[in-house]
Amino acid sequence: MDITIFGKGNMGTAIGKNFEAAGNQVAYYTSKDHVDSFGDLVILAVPYPALASIADEYGDSLKGKVVVDITNPLDFNTFDSLVVPADSSAAQELQAKLPDSKVLKAFNTNFAATLESGSVDGVTKTTVMVAGDDDDAKQSFKSALADSQLAVIDAGKLKRARELEAFGFLQMTTAASKQINWTGGFGVIK
Amino acid sequence: MDITIFGKGNMGTAIGKNFEAAGNQVAYYTSKDHVDSFGDLVILAVPYPALASIADEYGDSLKGKVVVDITNPLDFNTFDSLVVPADSSAAQELQAKLPDSKVLKAFNTNFAATLESGSVDGVTKTTVMVAGDDDDAKQSFKSALADSQLAVIDAGKLKRARELEAFGFLQMTTAASKQINWTGGFGVIK
Repeated sequence: MDITIFGKGNMGTAIGKNFEAAGNQVAYYTSKDHVDSFGDLVILAVPYPALASIADEYGDSLKGKVVVDITNPLDFNTFDSLVVPADSSAAQELQAKLPDSKVLKAFNTNFAATLESGSVDGVTKTTVMVAGDDDDAKQSFKSALADSQLAVIDAGKLKRARELEAFGFLQMTTAASKQINWTGGFGVIK
Repeated sequence: MDITIFGKGNMGTAIGKNFEAAGNQVAYYTSKDHVDSFGDLVILAVPYPALASIADEYGDSLKGKVVVDITNPLDFNTFDSLVVPADSSAAQELQAKLPDSKVLKAFNTNFAATLESGSVDGVTKTTVMVAGDDDDAKQSFKSALADSQLAVIDAGKLKRARELEAFGFLQMTTAASKQINWTGGFGVIK
């Protein structure tokens, strides 16, 4: 599968390595690059505030694409709240801005180090939780990672992004207070 | 410490065993019993709808007590939403009903089987996340479990109960869809 990743930070890089290891073609861009053509799967590995401008600039090009939001929309000044409305999520906001794209929420519950290593501090396999309204899009996402070191589970419809973002928020505050390591976190144990 | 547990179901029983193993005295009641005196720590191991009636009946007796809400306020008809307002939580509602008690949120992120066994499917130690506004209350709670098989981490102020309830909700839907076992779940890996 041809995959486009916006973002060359630690998340974009770690995510891309997994898609590459699973046999996909990955092209990397930053928000400053101009992108002429997109793969079928587009990962927005950018901070939350960048989502709106990408949606504005590339909305037409992203029609029909599977677009993956990985953000944790924290208020990074206070580390004490999310900046999205309590009854919504970054992913649902993005879907509203890109009505003709198939938006998925994924990777926001995984720390970058666990995507790199493939395990949560050596204890359990790194598991990606994915939510979205389009079942085929979720299946494509899952297939693209099938031969990677990561497990993928289905977290439900896109509205479950609210809970995934709460999970990611809690995991980040727990690491910020040094009660877990950034190489660990909340592992999915079957 | 003298501990009162409302609820003799699988959660109340598993929670009580851990407090007993750590050297505390535990008295168990159901919502139908009349309780004359309470311990310093009161665990409400009851379904969410029972919280309001317990608060109404025992509000005066619970003044000054540490009161622990363990509920996951799901809509069990749909398994698709929480029944509390998006910007609140069962724990914050309970604190509003019991303004002179010290309400904590705890145990809602732990499946009963993991509280019984002390591990998340044998992979990592069962870790209780506790949130609350009163630091002394959280410290008492933590001390009471210090000699148990459980680890305890501080999830922050009571407002973090929103995220803990989202976490519990997501864990339950993931188990209901058979992607994790009820003996497993989301383990805290340091």
